[in-house]
Amino acid sequence: MIDQRVHMENIQEQVRVFAPATVANMICGFDILGFAVDAPGDEVTMTKVEQLGVRITSIKGDDGRLPLDPDQNTVSACAMKVLEDLGLADEFGIEIELVKHMPIGSGLGSSSASTVAGVFAINALLGNPLTKEELLPYCIEGERLACGHGHADNVAPALMGGITLVRSYEPLDIVALPVPDGMYAGIVFPHVDVPTRDARQLIKDRVALKDAVVQWGNVAGLIAGLYRNDFALIGRSMQDVIIEPVRAILIPQFAEMKEIALSHGALSFGISGSGPSVVAITQSEEAAQTITQEIKKHLDQQEIDSNTYVSAVNTQGPRLLD
Amino acid sequence: MIDQRVHMENIQEQVRVFAPATVANMICGFDILGFAVDAPGDEVTMTKVEQLGVRITSIKGDDGRLPLDPDQNTVSACAMKVLEDLGLADEFGIEIELVKHMPIGSGLGSSSASTVAGVFAINALLGNPLTKEELLPYCIEGERLACGHGHADNVAPALMGGITLVRSYEPLDIVALPVPDGMYAGIVFPHVDVPTRDARQLIKDRVALKDAVVQWGNVAGLIAGLYRNDFALIGRSMQDVIIEPVRAILIPQFAEMKEIALSHGALSFGISGSGPSVVAITQSEEAAQTITQEIKKHLDQQEIDSNTYVSAVNTQGPRLLD
Repeated sequence: MIDQRVHMENIQEQVRVFAPATVANMICGFDILGFAVDAPGDEVTMTKVEQLGVRITSIKGDDGRLPLDPDQNTVSACAMKVLEDLGLADEFGIEIELVKHMPIGSGLGSSSASTVAGVFAINALLGNPLTKEELLPYCIEGERLACGHGHADNVAPALMGGITLVRSYEPLDIVALPVPDGMYAGIVFPHVDVPTRDARQLIKDRVALKDAVVQWGNVAGLIAGLYRNDFALIGRSMQDVIIEPVRAILIPQFAEMKEIALSHGALSFGISGSGPSVVAITQSEEAAQTITQEIKKHLDQQEIDSNTYVSAVNTQGPRLLD
Repeated sequence: MIDQRVHMENIQEQVRVFAPATVANMICGFDILGFAVDAPGDEVTMTKVEQLGVRITSIKGDDGRLPLDPDQNTVSACAMKVLEDLGLADEFGIEIELVKHMPIGSGLGSSSASTVAGVFAINALLGNPLTKEELLPYCIEGERLACGHGHADNVAPALMGGITLVRSYEPLDIVALPVPDGMYAGIVFPHVDVPTRDARQLIKDRVALKDAVVQWGNVAGLIAGLYRNDFALIGRSMQDVIIEPVRAILIPQFAEMKEIALSHGALSFGISGSGPSVVAITQSEEAAQTITQEIKKHLDQQEIDSNTYVSAVNTQGPRLLD
């Protein structure tokens, strides 16, 4: 039975959607904080067709690494689930083209960007029967399929935009946090391989209580700083004493990159998600530009290729293209 | 040499000061959060005398448990340190009367209230040469003398008033947090003995990372809730999965008291500081009254004596009496 929120006259023939990369953890908030950026991101074109089922017709930009099997690919699997839940799976089918404008395994929420683009696209195609809050559980399930764990610290900011707090998973409780005026992220993705699963496995199951206290003091300081638009407080709060000491070992030149960032005016510097991308938080676009250029120059000298991105916090989340 | 901030003509002959009890931890923020209440609290009368040195002439309300030795008592020791640092120790002496209007070892920051009353009083007696920020390190040293560790989660709110975050100790970084309109605390002190040192020793040195993540998600939610004046978010964030499960064992009837509080409209309920006092956070004075009365009634049935206190958050901190 077709869900009453669907109005057949609102269903589109085709939509094209961009969804953004995200910086999970925000340095001090492991597994709870994240923010969206303007670029990079992924693009999904979704077309309504007569033949039932959801198919991926092409994936570009993934170097052949992502599955075309619609049950295995997070974009198609999530779209299918939405279709089924709204009672539309027997009405028509969907064809998907995915263009990845961002590296896979970079620590920038690559799978999340695809998932969110797909979920946002199917909803847009159907005339937006679901709210973003209703779309989020589909995105979390997509993350589970793509990464083996249903975290929300990338999909929440990718879908909602801005800076998000995942306060709790059961029940799911997402809090939108204020975005300070003029906050920029300078991101560098060094071309070294640090798979998410390995990066997670390095982290110990138990941590020193005294470190945990430092960490939640910093988390509290960061949240207060965001509300106060207090960049000094934000900067001194964005320090990670628990995850960074372990994960930074996997990232060549981490200490050198951090020194470059801090000596060029970064408020804070750390790992984006599970790395190897790193992020400098700055109070201006210019500082973020300088920092990413200086880090790239340094990595070039070490013969490490890299991509750089400079972006304000993306407060919109996914958007329709065209 | 007398510090240039001291103006001899502003020095008073006598001051009388009240400093408030405090609820450290605020349930989810172990060692970093705390708030001040209107009552109970401690009272210090400080008198300038010719005879050099700082002496305690009387302590009331302590059942003879506190040291009169001026080097051992936090009130006199802190006052002496302020006098010395301002170059006044050779100019005149101080006599102190301390009246404790609150139980010792209750988890309500008893030593902090005395320390803060003393430090605030000596500063007031000297014509307020020091700011509250400058007074705080003296209070932390006083805590070290009284409790064996220099924590700030009681002295910071007792001195600053309101809700405070101790983001960091080195360097000391105290953040004043907003106080939501109409937030009340219903406090019950059951007369059972849980010394602070024992309560701390029960806590394990290492905690599960997954619990730490839940805790800093809750800390983040609480801070956001305070800024948003969002009592629902405050309530669901004020949960402690790390300390309460251990310390609650030391507090008879804890589970029963929690059930009474939550079933009578408490947003949250937990241990104040290291206990045995417990605190219900409510959105009205009436709810806090009802909860404390119902808990007291229950404890009476169990033949456990108790004191109850209902208070708004005290945003002022210490104050001059008379």
